[in-house]
Amino acid sequence: MHSFRVFVSIAVVWLAQGWVAAQTPLPSWNEGAAKQAILDFVAKVTKEGSPDFVPSDDRIAAFDNDGTLWTEQPMYFQAFFVLDRVKALAPEHPEWKDHEPFASLLKGEMNAALAGGERTLAEIVMATHAGMTTEEFDKIVSDWIATARHPKTGKLYTEMVYQPMLELLTHLRNNGFKTFIVSGGGIEFMRPWAQQVYSIPPEQIIGSSIKTKYEHRNGRPVIVRLPELNFIDDKSGKPVGIQQHIGRRPIAAFGNSDGDFEMLEWTTSGNGPRFGLIVHHTDAVREWAYDRQSSVGRLDKGLDEAKSHGWTLVDMKRDWKLIYRSE
Amino acid sequence: MHSFRVFVSIAVVWLAQGWVAAQTPLPSWNEGAAKQAILDFVAKVTKEGSPDFVPSDDRIAAFDNDGTLWTEQPMYFQAFFVLDRVKALAPEHPEWKDHEPFASLLKGEMNAALAGGERTLAEIVMATHAGMTTEEFDKIVSDWIATARHPKTGKLYTEMVYQPMLELLTHLRNNGFKTFIVSGGGIEFMRPWAQQVYSIPPEQIIGSSIKTKYEHRNGRPVIVRLPELNFIDDKSGKPVGIQQHIGRRPIAAFGNSDGDFEMLEWTTSGNGPRFGLIVHHTDAVREWAYDRQSSVGRLDKGLDEAKSHGWTLVDMKRDWKLIYRSE
Repeated sequence: MHSFRVFVSIAVVWLAQGWVAAQTPLPSWNEGAAKQAILDFVAKVTKEGSPDFVPSDDRIAAFDNDGTLWTEQPMYFQAFFVLDRVKALAPEHPEWKDHEPFASLLKGEMNAALAGGERTLAEIVMATHAGMTTEEFDKIVSDWIATARHPKTGKLYTEMVYQPMLELLTHLRNNGFKTFIVSGGGIEFMRPWAQQVYSIPPEQIIGSSIKTKYEHRNGRPVIVRLPELNFIDDKSGKPVGIQQHIGRRPIAAFGNSDGDFEMLEWTTSGNGPRFGLIVHHTDAVREWAYDRQSSVGRLDKGLDEAKSHGWTLVDMKRDWKLIYRSE
Repeated sequence: MHSFRVFVSIAVVWLAQGWVAAQTPLPSWNEGAAKQAILDFVAKVTKEGSPDFVPSDDRIAAFDNDGTLWTEQPMYFQAFFVLDRVKALAPEHPEWKDHEPFASLLKGEMNAALAGGERTLAEIVMATHAGMTTEEFDKIVSDWIATARHPKTGKLYTEMVYQPMLELLTHLRNNGFKTFIVSGGGIEFMRPWAQQVYSIPPEQIIGSSIKTKYEHRNGRPVIVRLPELNFIDDKSGKPVGIQQHIGRRPIAAFGNSDGDFEMLEWTTSGNGPRFGLIVHHTDAVREWAYDRQSSVGRLDKGLDEAKSHGWTLVDMKRDWKLIYRSE
């Protein structure tokens, strides 16, 4: 009786697995060159005995986040987080009313606030991201992401992830890939929600960071976030971040802007089968349309060189049946 | 017929899994408090419905390497690597004969070479670990680890890993744990061989590092190792490295020296069930016996405070049936 039940359980698991595998992958992708390129690549690297076979251990895929997995317009979502933090902290900082960049931020004028360049940006980051423990920051981000809404769509930010890219992540993982995020955004800004939204655990998130320090507060050990930049995971920093955290070259990389150029170049210049993909924002109706002239997510060099590098260009308007799951 | 064969395959897999699970875990551990503490901890965090149950995603275990997973006497194995590199590079550096610390290193006098303190150590690391690409360094380490032998035992260094600790890694992974190395040693010194020796992939290795830079050499993108320290993953650096790479607190940590104190403290001061373990080197016949007075792997504060923190002390002489697999 016991064995029979075990076999029934196994059969149920097996049937469920078969059912999942039988679902056509990438249902939100229109038929076309981009979808076919993805399916062909996954098929060839998973076919044992083929010259393009890649063992499961080496199936590493790296994804940019802003503009690749979720929307980045009219500005990076982490910038909205900064604005909300400045407003929340303003009562403790009456001097901010007359002190830039905070005076502009409190009026919601991000461009004016950033006019001071890198030093201003650093000042903003430090005021909103440093001084607390890692656990306190985790809670601040978790509370914000659960409630804050995008000013144009009224959606939760986590509702503005791209359904076709979620399906791509799933298709890769179903085929033995380990999926990583490699973003210019803050590493600890993404970790609190990426597991739930992307099914990517904290240890597979790479991003920009500030320095931290281990110390004791009230007799308890804590890790405190310091007002000092540690690492910028953007442009040529992305291959460096990949090497530091993953320790080997991905075989597939996915981005949308020139900030992802070096990650795509590093990934696709390795030996054996390689895959690079750029999401081109072409849909002004369902999302945003921007490339060479955009201050956020500029895509210029990548558009010029995608073809010569063999990278797949996704035309969001043409290739995606829907943008967000809620459509 | 097809279904029948599938069921037979599944039954075989199931029987094989049952057989593996039925093997008594930790066969190289003598019965006693240390072995029992490990078994009890794993049993309680994996028992669904129990108040101590920990979901598989949160079963993170962190292991020191030198002195915890392999021997560290009479000096860290990476120091032997340095000596061998200095000898190999000496023909290109005739000036080293008369220039410290290299003159001492060429005579095999590590202590004299290190008399200059941290600056000297940095000079040695830079001369032997920097200037090449990450791929070149990977090959240098791989070639060395495959052939170099320990001066006292004559074994390959990878034959000097502790069999009881390999069994512990396996037991944890068989129970849904994700195992990480968190070592003061060089991150890129461990990655080339850790997968094969410990079944731990590169992305689960955390260690000390130098800075790197993405650039083009001969038209090919490369990551170059720079003569500049990036991060020291020791003492209070270990919780910082854990947070940077893993992004959450382990529930179990394993070390052997005061360099692991903060990692153990950070791990075991979290909420819920926690486990800390210190390997105490007590076996002068089969390995080395050292603790409070040792210049390598000093264990002093950890011995004093293990009990009050609830950490398990392993007495190598008493608790381990064998040290190395080859015994």
